[in-house]
Amino acid sequence: MTVVNLTKLTAEPGKQVIVVEREFEAPRELVFEAFTDAELFVQWMGPRDLTMDLQQFEARDGGAWRYVSKAPNGGEFAFCGVFHEVSAPERIIQTFEFLGMPTRGHVTLETAIFEALPGDRTRVKMESVFRSVEDRDGMLQSNMEQGMNESFQRLVELLATLRAKE
Amino acid sequence: MTVVNLTKLTAEPGKQVIVVEREFEAPRELVFEAFTDAELFVQWMGPRDLTMDLQQFEARDGGAWRYVSKAPNGGEFAFCGVFHEVSAPERIIQTFEFLGMPTRGHVTLETAIFEALPGDRTRVKMESVFRSVEDRDGMLQSNMEQGMNESFQRLVELLATLRAKE
Repeated sequence: MTVVNLTKLTAEPGKQVIVVEREFEAPRELVFEAFTDAELFVQWMGPRDLTMDLQQFEARDGGAWRYVSKAPNGGEFAFCGVFHEVSAPERIIQTFEFLGMPTRGHVTLETAIFEALPGDRTRVKMESVFRSVEDRDGMLQSNMEQGMNESFQRLVELLATLRAKE
Repeated sequence: MTVVNLTKLTAEPGKQVIVVEREFEAPRELVFEAFTDAELFVQWMGPRDLTMDLQQFEARDGGAWRYVSKAPNGGEFAFCGVFHEVSAPERIIQTFEFLGMPTRGHVTLETAIFEALPGDRTRVKMESVFRSVEDRDGMLQSNMEQGMNESFQRLVELLATLRAKE
């Protein structure tokens, strides 16, 4: 049986939500760990050619996080947020902001749901709620999908490596 | 000149946002303080006949908050969230969750903008972004507006008392 893991992105016109769904060939506990363990997180989040500087990562209820992605040409992209809820192994709710926007305040509310599937597989559903339709559409028009797919590909490889070690 | 401070609530059909605007007879710094100083916050937030137990209130970027409103009959209503951004005296962005729902996860992203008006007055614009239209409409159908107006009335009284002491 061949399982093809496509990423499904849903963004209804006029709404302020993006939903991304993706299945992974790894048990739910392991996928959840990749999202919440600092040592694993830095191995897949962000583009390959950028250096990830994870400055804060308190993956628990009420914790804060912050990282800076550094490009070879010296460019820096900073992101920050707070964890509202981290309930292993099923749900993470947090805020997210890219600090490189012209003004602050373009914050999103991000919910990730981890669903166990038969055969030690996992479906992750990631919902981003924006403050406005304009913010949502701006994100869709950016390079978001490409960056996301590169991160997911890195995560797939990391999960395979971790499972090979088990 | 008589200034009538009405509360304006906007909730467009089919959207997942509630916007509440209200003007106060106090300078912006003082109004902002009432939202972020624990000693002041407990004096106006929530209904008069409930006791406010503010268990955590880290009103700064990355801080967490939690309080329990206690009714005379023993009923308790718990709320929690995290502060994404606290920029005095102009903006607060935080999450909000009522922990008395049948399931967790009904979180909102709350943005409060404090605008200085002539004559030492202040306009506060509070935007609540819900995860879904259903969540938003459920909040509208609850007793939200009455509870909010009672809190605002208490805030008006508190601000008048503070200004009288100046």
